[in-house]
Amino acid sequence: MYNVGVIGCGYWGPNLIRNYTQLNRSRVKIVADLDRDRLSHMKKLYPSVETTIDYMNIINDPEINIVTIATPVSTHYKFASEALSAGKHVFVEKPIASSAKDAESLVNIAKKNHLKLMVGHTFIYTAAVKKMKEIVQSGELGDIYYINSQRLNLGLFQKDINVLWDLAPHDISIILYLLDQEPKWISAAGSSNINGFIEDVAVLTMKFNDKLIAFTQVSWLDPDKIRKMTVVGSKKMMVYDDVQPTEKIRIYDKAVEMPKHYDTFAEFQYSYKYGDIIIPKIDGKEPLSTELSHFLDCIEQDLTPMSSGEKGLEVVKILEASDESLKNNSSLVELCNNQFLLN
Amino acid sequence: MYNVGVIGCGYWGPNLIRNYTQLNRSRVKIVADLDRDRLSHMKKLYPSVETTIDYMNIINDPEINIVTIATPVSTHYKFASEALSAGKHVFVEKPIASSAKDAESLVNIAKKNHLKLMVGHTFIYTAAVKKMKEIVQSGELGDIYYINSQRLNLGLFQKDINVLWDLAPHDISIILYLLDQEPKWISAAGSSNINGFIEDVAVLTMKFNDKLIAFTQVSWLDPDKIRKMTVVGSKKMMVYDDVQPTEKIRIYDKAVEMPKHYDTFAEFQYSYKYGDIIIPKIDGKEPLSTELSHFLDCIEQDLTPMSSGEKGLEVVKILEASDESLKNNSSLVELCNNQFLLN
Amino acid sequence: MYNVGVIGCGYWGPNLIRNYTQLNRSRVKIVADLDRDRLSHMKKLYPSVETTIDYMNIINDPEINIVTIATPVSTHYKFASEALSAGKHVFVEKPIASSAKDAESLVNIAKKNHLKLMVGHTFIYTAAVKKMKEIVQSGELGDIYYINSQRLNLGLFQKDINVLWDLAPHDISIILYLLDQEPKWISAAGSSNINGFIEDVAVLTMKFNDKLIAFTQVSWLDPDKIRKMTVVGSKKMMVYDDVQPTEKIRIYDKAVEMPKHYDTFAEFQYSYKYGDIIIPKIDGKEPLSTELSHFLDCIEQDLTPMSSGEKGLEVVKILEASDESLKNNSSLVELCNNQFLLN
Amino acid sequence: MYNVGVIGCGYWGPNLIRNYTQLNRSRVKIVADLDRDRLSHMKKLYPSVETTIDYMNIINDPEINIVTIATPVSTHYKFASEALSAGKHVFVEKPIASSAKDAESLVNIAKKNHLKLMVGHTFIYTAAVKKMKEIVQSGELGDIYYINSQRLNLGLFQKDINVLWDLAPHDISIILYLLDQEPKWISAAGSSNINGFIEDVAVLTMKFNDKLIAFTQVSWLDPDKIRKMTVVGSKKMMVYDDVQPTEKIRIYDKAVEMPKHYDTFAEFQYSYKYGDIIIPKIDGKEPLSTELSHFLDCIEQDLTPMSSGEKGLEVVKILEASDESLKNNSSLVELCNNQFLLN
Repeated sequence: MYNVGVIGCGYWGPNLIRNYTQLNRSRVKIVADLDRDRLSHMKKLYPSVETTIDYMNIINDPEINIVTIATPVSTHYKFASEALSAGKHVFVEKPIASSAKDAESLVNIAKKNHLKLMVGHTFIYTAAVKKMKEIVQSGELGDIYYINSQRLNLGLFQKDINVLWDLAPHDISIILYLLDQEPKWISAAGSSNINGFIEDVAVLTMKFNDKLIAFTQVSWLDPDKIRKMTVVGSKKMMVYDDVQPTEKIRIYDKAVEMPKHYDTFAEFQYSYKYGDIIIPKIDGKEPLSTELSHFLDCIEQDLTPMSSGEKGLEVVKILEASDESLKNNSSLVELCNNQFLLN
Repeated sequence: MYNVGVIGCGYWGPNLIRNYTQLNRSRVKIVADLDRDRLSHMKKLYPSVETTIDYMNIINDPEINIVTIATPVSTHYKFASEALSAGKHVFVEKPIASSAKDAESLVNIAKKNHLKLMVGHTFIYTAAVKKMKEIVQSGELGDIYYINSQRLNLGLFQKDINVLWDLAPHDISIILYLLDQEPKWISAAGSSNINGFIEDVAVLTMKFNDKLIAFTQVSWLDPDKIRKMTVVGSKKMMVYDDVQPTEKIRIYDKAVEMPKHYDTFAEFQYSYKYGDIIIPKIDGKEPLSTELSHFLDCIEQDLTPMSSGEKGLEVVKILEASDESLKNNSSLVELCNNQFLLN
Repeated sequence: MYNVGVIGCGYWGPNLIRNYTQLNRSRVKIVADLDRDRLSHMKKLYPSVETTIDYMNIINDPEINIVTIATPVSTHYKFASEALSAGKHVFVEKPIASSAKDAESLVNIAKKNHLKLMVGHTFIYTAAVKKMKEIVQSGELGDIYYINSQRLNLGLFQKDINVLWDLAPHDISIILYLLDQEPKWISAAGSSNINGFIEDVAVLTMKFNDKLIAFTQVSWLDPDKIRKMTVVGSKKMMVYDDVQPTEKIRIYDKAVEMPKHYDTFAEFQYSYKYGDIIIPKIDGKEPLSTELSHFLDCIEQDLTPMSSGEKGLEVVKILEASDESLKNNSSLVELCNNQFLLN
Repeated sequence: MYNVGVIGCGYWGPNLIRNYTQLNRSRVKIVADLDRDRLSHMKKLYPSVETTIDYMNIINDPEINIVTIATPVSTHYKFASEALSAGKHVFVEKPIASSAKDAESLVNIAKKNHLKLMVGHTFIYTAAVKKMKEIVQSGELGDIYYINSQRLNLGLFQKDINVLWDLAPHDISIILYLLDQEPKWISAAGSSNINGFIEDVAVLTMKFNDKLIAFTQVSWLDPDKIRKMTVVGSKKMMVYDDVQPTEKIRIYDKAVEMPKHYDTFAEFQYSYKYGDIIIPKIDGKEPLSTELSHFLDCIEQDLTPMSSGEKGLEVVKILEASDESLKNNSSLVELCNNQFLLN
């Protein structure tokens, strides 16, 4: 039985507590938060859980072997590094830290101490994204031409991070998972409409090589709730619409091809394929349960989490580069992928 | 009665011929095309129209007072300049020319000869876009924060221009019409998947000032047909979905506001407004008829067309800048708006 | 503080327990069910609640002043009549009983004992249906021509009642609430596909007078989840789509009119009005909370519940008549509305 | 080359003329209508066609071998019987006649004179309905449990027939085509809201045997345009949504089964299957062209049309029975299928 300490029980924390509680292998021992009202609400929902306003009661508790962090991004590094240094496995919400340097440091501490560090890229644990991964891996789509995603909504403004840091980690982590590679260059464009210092709408462009590209658009200011990703391949195309209650994925048997040989420009004809559409059945299991269960598996069997600290670092490097691009007229920023990690 | 000569009767030409024929003030006298099959097809549909493979038969015909051009973009300048020089009013399909220099030249020839030059930015003549313009002008949306548009589809690849030159003129002309201003900087990102030399998916970002921004995404490679534009204002938001057969515009009584005064960061609270949605009735009249009728009005009453040569030039300057940005790592390109036109 | 006893904690019971618990004026003291697993599950969720397999522990508990029944329909009468006879106020799930005779009897016992009897016609407590009621009452729609509803889904077959008894109480209670009158005649048609004895698809037709008619279609065997009601008026039309997460109601400024006067048949022309569509903002509050709160208000202030026992009886009379119509070749069955109730 | 005479060129006539003209095997020689404006409009569109206000010019023209009738229903019998008697093959719009007696008479005259009589059940010539027929015939859906259809719209009121005679022939002809059998009993319910004598909303129920049932709802007074048909089978379910521009058919791998054997009622469990959804590619060819081409094939090769006079008679018998049911309290009317036709 794993004893879990949860730091932060605001918006997302209660979901973590509930899921740890429902798994048979773990229980939440202590919850820490600065807000006493939230703590007493947690106590009411889970009478057996201890509550504290001092997170050190978690760090110092020798019975606790897992620390789970659901606090504002700027505090992730502090809590996670102290927990890792105290010998606890750490699960931290996305993004893993507010800088690549901090993220890299967390990865290194975990590695040195032989502890598991996992980041809450929850979407890659959904049945829909797993299905997409299977389809991409099977080659059914052919070569991937590009990926296009939108995550738009009205509301839930963050106070300390912009809309890219808030929403794009979902899309970035899904895209990296599907493509199994990191972008070489990125650019970003956006604007700040409500609060002059924080972008509330933005487009991120990730280039993986000369051809493969991905666009991610995020907004806190759109009247419709849109969570959509299109994966265009040379043989088929796939659309993931997370707002749909059941029909989340569509596979289109559609493609365009340029003729292999042609003598004159006038002869030149693109050929189009229009075929059936398939909407595969998607399992409805709660992804957070799958995610935490996977975390416990990784601890027990000494496996690398699908959303390891390294994966969290990749996402933060992209976000950091997006800040640089935003400051420099949207120009392309090269990502240096090899220099960071401890050998 | 205006006598019209039409150069080019491929995909769009027949629509022009039909609409000129249905207006009481004009008739199509001659149609020119290099493809004899297309000409005989036109002859069958409109027996009274003369056909020719030599466009000079139009240029040299003294009875013809209007020349209408629906040929590949690279030939627009040649046909339009010759027609204007021969004293004909000219209507040319979008984009007006394949370079800002050529577009500017056309504007100057028309001005010198006191002739009307109009470009086929057809969407601004639709009832839906007119309705949007009324709503923006009325102030109902408040200050415009940003505009976001998508024009995605599978197919209709062009051979001589990329997807931005092909599809973005629609969005750009609508956005400039709604905002009544030109962007100061633009950037573009895209990739070429089918034909290595021609982008088939791209995102264009237009910055109008420090805050106001517009995003336009275009693709020839999307499984869904999407033609959508979102206008986000400080008081309300508006969505234009041109794929809907009747419900093309939605006005959302939604907004986000930052508090005017607050003492501590903890007090800080965004306020959200969620109200009714209105779908205004949109008139279903064919926009091409409205457009050509407006062109004839401008000739008769010596008015400036809503989609004048100057407006066509603005669009081409943006497209030309997008080429430059694509070649330079998506970096921002400044638009110099004042240097071009003849004094 | 009201002490509530809940009989039945299968599918719907836990929602009742949760909502009673969250209201400040009531607490659930005892839960009874024959299934010990369900009872221990309830105990885990609500440790302070007593559980029992003998419902008489509720009936005989002098502290309990409210009994709430969420058991199969065939047992409603038994539990409700015993609770009322023991001096408890009773809330019973829909339909109130399995025959009009039983329903009438419950109404009479409650009246005699000066107790509140309320039936769980939950939909009339939703913000959407309240909004529809306001719109109908305001006269905005003009005269109501007809109502058309569909409640279709795959699954949740009942073992003891057919699809009309299971699903139609929702539609009937909404329709009676909107129209504020009862039908004079009904007819029903259906078929039994899975279980030869129980209809799993059916259409109910209710005639309120020579003109006003309502159609309700229900199915346990439809691939799509559909919950839709159209109210057609002489001035406007309204559509209620309960499957939509937020845009549940649409008001169409559409109408058809016959000309008042015309001389010849050839002159005769219907006139059509096509105007804007409005999607009003709907409050998202949980209707069960509103419903139970209303029940407590009625007890405290001696008011008649909106979904009183009499309203429950009206619905059951229609369902009973539908059985008769199904047995008699779908022929119209007249409803005798005045003969039942105790004077 | 077939010479066609067309009687009636109002709403639908021009489509018939255009399609006959585009087929290589036929030409329209004469068009008759009482409205001289419509005739001159046709003359303008098709200069080579003769026009007349006297349909006898068609009947008496020995060159004409096909008469096509697109007039109000009440005149179908007169024109069709005279044309058949004059030795012409006849294509008549739906419904074939305004009574079963008249329809039967037309069938008999055609049979006696060895002429082809075909009725314009155009929907069975669409690619979507053909696809549905293939799917039903293949057994993929299993046994058909029931069919449910809706054809709702605002407008196009007819002056001489009610909404069932106007719209239901489409649904009835599709349903009979899919099931390849005729109903044994029908019932109908409806009401007249605009014009007191003509039903403008109605539900038709057709029973094919003890289990198989079909519901068809039609309205001229619905704010939405709906044309939908659901075919529920024991193995799969299929939805046909004709309003969709491309995705007209969906095949759901969903089903419900009752257990074969069970010992106690408590054990009893329905089993549900939820699988993929397939949206097959549908060819977009104009059905009227397919239909008229089939008519010419039947004449040339002496085949029985898919929508023969007998099929038209079946539909009219159902419509006639619906009138009887409407007049008799919606009660079931038995259809006597064998008594009509000439031996």
